[in-house]
Amino acid sequence: MNIVYKSEPERGKKWAALVAERAPATRFHLWPDTGNPEEVGYLVAWIPPDDIMQQFPNLKVLFSVGAGADQFDYASLPPTLPVVRMIEPGLTRGMVEYVTFAVLGLHRDMPRYLQQQREGLWQAHSVHTAASRRIGVMGLGTLGEAVLQPLVALGFDCAGWSRSPRDLPGVQCYAGRERLGEFLARTDILICLLPLTASTEGMLNADLFSQLPRGAALVQVGRGAQLDHDDLIRALDSQQLRAAVVDVTAPEPLPPGHAFWQHPAVWLTPHIASQTQPESAVEALLDNIRRFERGEPMIGVVDREKGY
Amino acid sequence: MNIVYKSEPERGKKWAALVAERAPATRFHLWPDTGNPEEVGYLVAWIPPDDIMQQFPNLKVLFSVGAGADQFDYASLPPTLPVVRMIEPGLTRGMVEYVTFAVLGLHRDMPRYLQQQREGLWQAHSVHTAASRRIGVMGLGTLGEAVLQPLVALGFDCAGWSRSPRDLPGVQCYAGRERLGEFLARTDILICLLPLTASTEGMLNADLFSQLPRGAALVQVGRGAQLDHDDLIRALDSQQLRAAVVDVTAPEPLPPGHAFWQHPAVWLTPHIASQTQPESAVEALLDNIRRFERGEPMIGVVDREKGY
Repeated sequence: MNIVYKSEPERGKKWAALVAERAPATRFHLWPDTGNPEEVGYLVAWIPPDDIMQQFPNLKVLFSVGAGADQFDYASLPPTLPVVRMIEPGLTRGMVEYVTFAVLGLHRDMPRYLQQQREGLWQAHSVHTAASRRIGVMGLGTLGEAVLQPLVALGFDCAGWSRSPRDLPGVQCYAGRERLGEFLARTDILICLLPLTASTEGMLNADLFSQLPRGAALVQVGRGAQLDHDDLIRALDSQQLRAAVVDVTAPEPLPPGHAFWQHPAVWLTPHIASQTQPESAVEALLDNIRRFERGEPMIGVVDREKGY
Repeated sequence: MNIVYKSEPERGKKWAALVAERAPATRFHLWPDTGNPEEVGYLVAWIPPDDIMQQFPNLKVLFSVGAGADQFDYASLPPTLPVVRMIEPGLTRGMVEYVTFAVLGLHRDMPRYLQQQREGLWQAHSVHTAASRRIGVMGLGTLGEAVLQPLVALGFDCAGWSRSPRDLPGVQCYAGRERLGEFLARTDILICLLPLTASTEGMLNADLFSQLPRGAALVQVGRGAQLDHDDLIRALDSQQLRAAVVDVTAPEPLPPGHAFWQHPAVWLTPHIASQTQPESAVEALLDNIRRFERGEPMIGVVDREKGY
């Protein structure tokens, strides 16, 4: 059964080489090459072709190349086709690095210090201890759980919020909409790692920001469409929020002249917090295909009811 | 026996309140108040008065308020007067936070991304794994050892260099001048946490930079006089180094117009990596005074031969 890869072509070449090495019997095609479309069983894609089932009538599984699977148009997919998100250690490690960097930077007032640097100002500000800094992670999936570990180890006061109840060592866990206000009221640095669903779209808005303590900070590493850009700028300009580190936006890239490019309290990165690493991603893909072929459950299957 | 504190007055008030609470029998004076100078046994200072022994003829111990003790003029101090550096967990935690932030920022190309942001450029660059990133810490005292722990936990390839041999878990240790070249040649991100001595003054210069791999990065959290500013700018402009995070300089503050203020590959902070925390510093001070009065060794006594 053949695999077709349809995503960033440079990385695709690495995937092809790794598959050739680790599963030499597998035929792996880089889009637009598909080999015989009738023999394609597995599609690895960020954006699949529109007429996916016409193209590949014998498709068994659709794999996302990334952690998210919100980019798929589920209405156009057969309800029985399994859709699988990418869960692999390289992706997780990248997110842990980025979030640890962003939280420490906000904790230690680095956006303010780098702004002072450009203004030629040498001035120290008072320091908070990690124990007195309340971190809150929204979304406690694989990534949310992983980013909390070093933050707990660094001594921060950590909490998490998720749709369904979780229990994590060293983390105060809140669950459900009815406890969101309580979670936000105790959060000085908010990290969004939620999946994009109908209920999280536009969720990072003025109403949510107003429930954080005055002077809180935001790390947005969820999905672009969750964040209301105008509301964020207003919250920063009114000092309800003191700074934001933003890795994902809608649209991407941001248009020229957008307020995020020059705002001194925004650190903007071009969706690089976490990238699928070919080495470990190919391992995860081949492992899932073997599971599927043996009739075992795959890792990262999307629940279409929940949307992730 | 009385204590006199001569340093930053706002923090001095916190020290006074903490001493009053924890050692109510102790008289603690904030400079220029000294009480009866003949009764002063302990001086806590960054810069002591010039005529220290004339002022306080019965002085028993000179304590530095900071981790360094290179600011003292040893020629003017009686050779038998113990000089003690500040070793306290608040200072250590601050340094761990700052260095973890700086290393992750350099590892993930953040100076470049923040520069791209200001230029309105949305462009991702390839990612290195932590395992393939070689971190090197110069100076393996209390702080050097502490900063290595989270870096090892994050999966970086860690090494350390010090004057005398050390053995640290998960860290390849090099010792002595004769192994410095070997240590530098394998270091992608160099962290300087050396004390200031005759042999480390000016050590971060063109010769040292040329021994690092091309495109290496620097975190300078040692002492200002160790870094040759012109050599750093030249190394950055020739791309021998790709970026530097600098917290200490000579002089401080930097003069207006200095190249560090505006250089896109320099992140400059105003000597804030690590600040003595009154809570834990007062604990460390009172503990050392109790040790001294019982005839036990104090923690952090400066070896004047070595200079730290």
